[in-house]
Amino acid sequence: MRTLSLFALAVVACLAVPSDAGDLRTASALRDRALGDPTAWNIVESLTTEIGPRPIGSPAYSRARDWAIARLKALGFVNVHAEVFPKPAWIRGAESAEVVGPFPQKLAIIGLGNTVPTPPQGIEAPIVVLKSYAELLAARPGAFKGRIVVVNQPMTRTEDGSGYGAAVQIRNGYGEAARRGALAYLIRSVSTGAPRSPHTGAIWGPGTGKIPAAALGVPDADLLQHMAARGPVRLRLKLASSVNPKSLAWNISGEVTGSARPDQIVVIGGHLDSWDPGTGAIDDAAGVAITTAAATLINRLPQHPRRTIRVVLWGSEENGGSSDAYLAAHRNELGKIVLAGESDLGSDRAIHVDLPDGAAKAPAFALLPAVLAPLKVFVADTPPRHGGSDIEGLQKAGVPIFAVGQDASRYFDYHHSADDTLAVVDRASLNQNVAVWASLLYLAADSNVDFRAKPGK
Amino acid sequence: MRTLSLFALAVVACLAVPSDAGDLRTASALRDRALGDPTAWNIVESLTTEIGPRPIGSPAYSRARDWAIARLKALGFVNVHAEVFPKPAWIRGAESAEVVGPFPQKLAIIGLGNTVPTPPQGIEAPIVVLKSYAELLAARPGAFKGRIVVVNQPMTRTEDGSGYGAAVQIRNGYGEAARRGALAYLIRSVSTGAPRSPHTGAIWGPGTGKIPAAALGVPDADLLQHMAARGPVRLRLKLASSVNPKSLAWNISGEVTGSARPDQIVVIGGHLDSWDPGTGAIDDAAGVAITTAAATLINRLPQHPRRTIRVVLWGSEENGGSSDAYLAAHRNELGKIVLAGESDLGSDRAIHVDLPDGAAKAPAFALLPAVLAPLKVFVADTPPRHGGSDIEGLQKAGVPIFAVGQDASRYFDYHHSADDTLAVVDRASLNQNVAVWASLLYLAADSNVDFRAKPGK
Repeated sequence: MRTLSLFALAVVACLAVPSDAGDLRTASALRDRALGDPTAWNIVESLTTEIGPRPIGSPAYSRARDWAIARLKALGFVNVHAEVFPKPAWIRGAESAEVVGPFPQKLAIIGLGNTVPTPPQGIEAPIVVLKSYAELLAARPGAFKGRIVVVNQPMTRTEDGSGYGAAVQIRNGYGEAARRGALAYLIRSVSTGAPRSPHTGAIWGPGTGKIPAAALGVPDADLLQHMAARGPVRLRLKLASSVNPKSLAWNISGEVTGSARPDQIVVIGGHLDSWDPGTGAIDDAAGVAITTAAATLINRLPQHPRRTIRVVLWGSEENGGSSDAYLAAHRNELGKIVLAGESDLGSDRAIHVDLPDGAAKAPAFALLPAVLAPLKVFVADTPPRHGGSDIEGLQKAGVPIFAVGQDASRYFDYHHSADDTLAVVDRASLNQNVAVWASLLYLAADSNVDFRAKPGK
Repeated sequence: MRTLSLFALAVVACLAVPSDAGDLRTASALRDRALGDPTAWNIVESLTTEIGPRPIGSPAYSRARDWAIARLKALGFVNVHAEVFPKPAWIRGAESAEVVGPFPQKLAIIGLGNTVPTPPQGIEAPIVVLKSYAELLAARPGAFKGRIVVVNQPMTRTEDGSGYGAAVQIRNGYGEAARRGALAYLIRSVSTGAPRSPHTGAIWGPGTGKIPAAALGVPDADLLQHMAARGPVRLRLKLASSVNPKSLAWNISGEVTGSARPDQIVVIGGHLDSWDPGTGAIDDAAGVAITTAAATLINRLPQHPRRTIRVVLWGSEENGGSSDAYLAAHRNELGKIVLAGESDLGSDRAIHVDLPDGAAKAPAFALLPAVLAPLKVFVADTPPRHGGSDIEGLQKAGVPIFAVGQDASRYFDYHHSADDTLAVVDRASLNQNVAVWASLLYLAADSNVDFRAKPGK
């Protein structure tokens, strides 16, 4: 039985209880400490204030690397280093769109990540407004020849963020529009909100041809639909961008060394890169903060848990790449990675915890529901299907994953837009997440559970 | 007793009831009709779609005049015309701000209306961040020599919008900053929201010197405060603008002629001009729509009320001028204007009606609470102190005023910003306002009440 000096007295009084009682007491103490701990907030505040938006290829992205290394070291992590990999950078230039006629107005737009630019003088053409992506897919080849296609399909607000899947498909539809003769592709922002700030995001879908692609502010997409209902509308679109094919990215790694089985590793983290219009507070300074703060609280315990906790601050989530790079670099230690989880759904309250198949029934997690109940978090009886983009490679390679399900009701109001700032981070909810991660992480890292073995089955 | 053919049967059955029973039935019928009437929504939709932002001096402002005249005529108003007055136009140019160091970031800003421009190369200087306007006023002359002053005082959210008064004072503080040696004046947007879109608004306060003045996005003001807490911060501000001293403005007027006393006039309206970042949906297409729709419903009655209803779509609210121009042009008919009211607080639900002193107790309004109760609107027992900027001149000249108090909880999240679009207009609330205005307006216009005489006292 591993005991903690802090809780020695209590443990002495409970020598007759099952062997995990000390762990559960520590997990509960971590939970309570997390709720009042400033680490997570300080990380979000620092990353958004001192670095700000940090897309790959920007000077801020390099500053974020230095920030992360310094921060992890200052928090006492060991083996802190950057793992570099090549990642071409798409760099945004000046962008504008306006209705030329019959009702001249400027529009709020933002180029979608990786879009090709327009010619310098822009593209001026009549628009066709489609109320759904299905209308685009149903149109015959060449149907929109010489036009700018506007897809104005709203995103559905859901607590679990599941409306995003359908919406992302639309964002990637430029190839479908090009196949039907479109000169450019505009979408209603992938957003559940009403603010005018448009939402960017990467495109990389298959297409027969590349045409410029941008997102309209939600009100702007509706505006074009209202105009188009009156008759023909002409629009002028200008998108400038460049690509640096030799750009580099990096995953930043730091560890809390395990006390008994340091060779067994639990990998957690959030992603360090962000889109450019906001300061990347909920996407994903929050995930960086939640996981780093949880590991920091554990790092401060008088005795570390048995296994090593490795925090990886992923360097290329928004444009993909972290996951593959990590898998390639760590293929020979895959067997040592006993569990992995990512935090990348903002800072709003955690609702449930999803453990690998069978783990919830393992003795080590028998009292986890009791630890999480005061946080109003339940242990779900189904394992996560998807744990996060950056651990997708690990997951596919057989590493067991867990997830903390959050309230994503507000997340898509802000993410990838100028409104993703510290102003939309709720400190209490942020810390509630840290509490969940810290207690869960401690139990997992201090256990002997073999998550690959479907332990409770 | 005036009767309506629509309600003739009902009225015949009620010949014994007091003389206002027919009016109250008509008012109730107008109320119910308003809730399902498309006029108000169509006006907001049309003005934001076909005209969009319409600051004085812009081509859209001229298009708005033509739109308003055509729309009032199409709705059956008579004596529709524009009353032109001179109004110098301040015209926005390119604007930007960025932190130069130590944490380079672009900032979201918007120039305050009427600000002087910066030199073309901008102003680069260290900032001082003040958490309240009182700190600025308490500083000695010259205290901020060579600095850009940032006032980061949040606005208080209130249901009645009363937090705006204190905030507007801050917006006008550039003279106080200049007196203390500041090179430029930046304020936290006068906003109750968290979105990054900055909020503009006119400045015209007294000052010893003119320095450039702009509003930061709410998150940007906090960001600068967080940076400044770490040490010196340098900022670069560029504001371009021009002034057209020979620009013209116009109040658009149209009438529903009174059936018995057409020389007695009830003046109502909203303002046609708007700020430029949004489409001026809640500020003030909504007011234009609410008052025009209410008058239109009355105009469609088989018999008009006794008095004339005059809808005035004010042409220069945001920069002032409508009120004085109207007073100057109508000084010789002030005695004929029996009552005036303005709608300029967005489209959210009406909560109470404020009548001129004593009017609520006049027999003509005895059953008004019964008409408004189903709308969850009460008749307040205090007259309005302020009925709206555009009728301030009339009010000061002794014209009795009324007001419809609305829920302004959300209004200052959006007004004067890019987020003021059709997306934030709730159609049901908009129509609830029309219902209040239509029923109240009918009772006032069909009455003999002399509002100047404190009738119920």
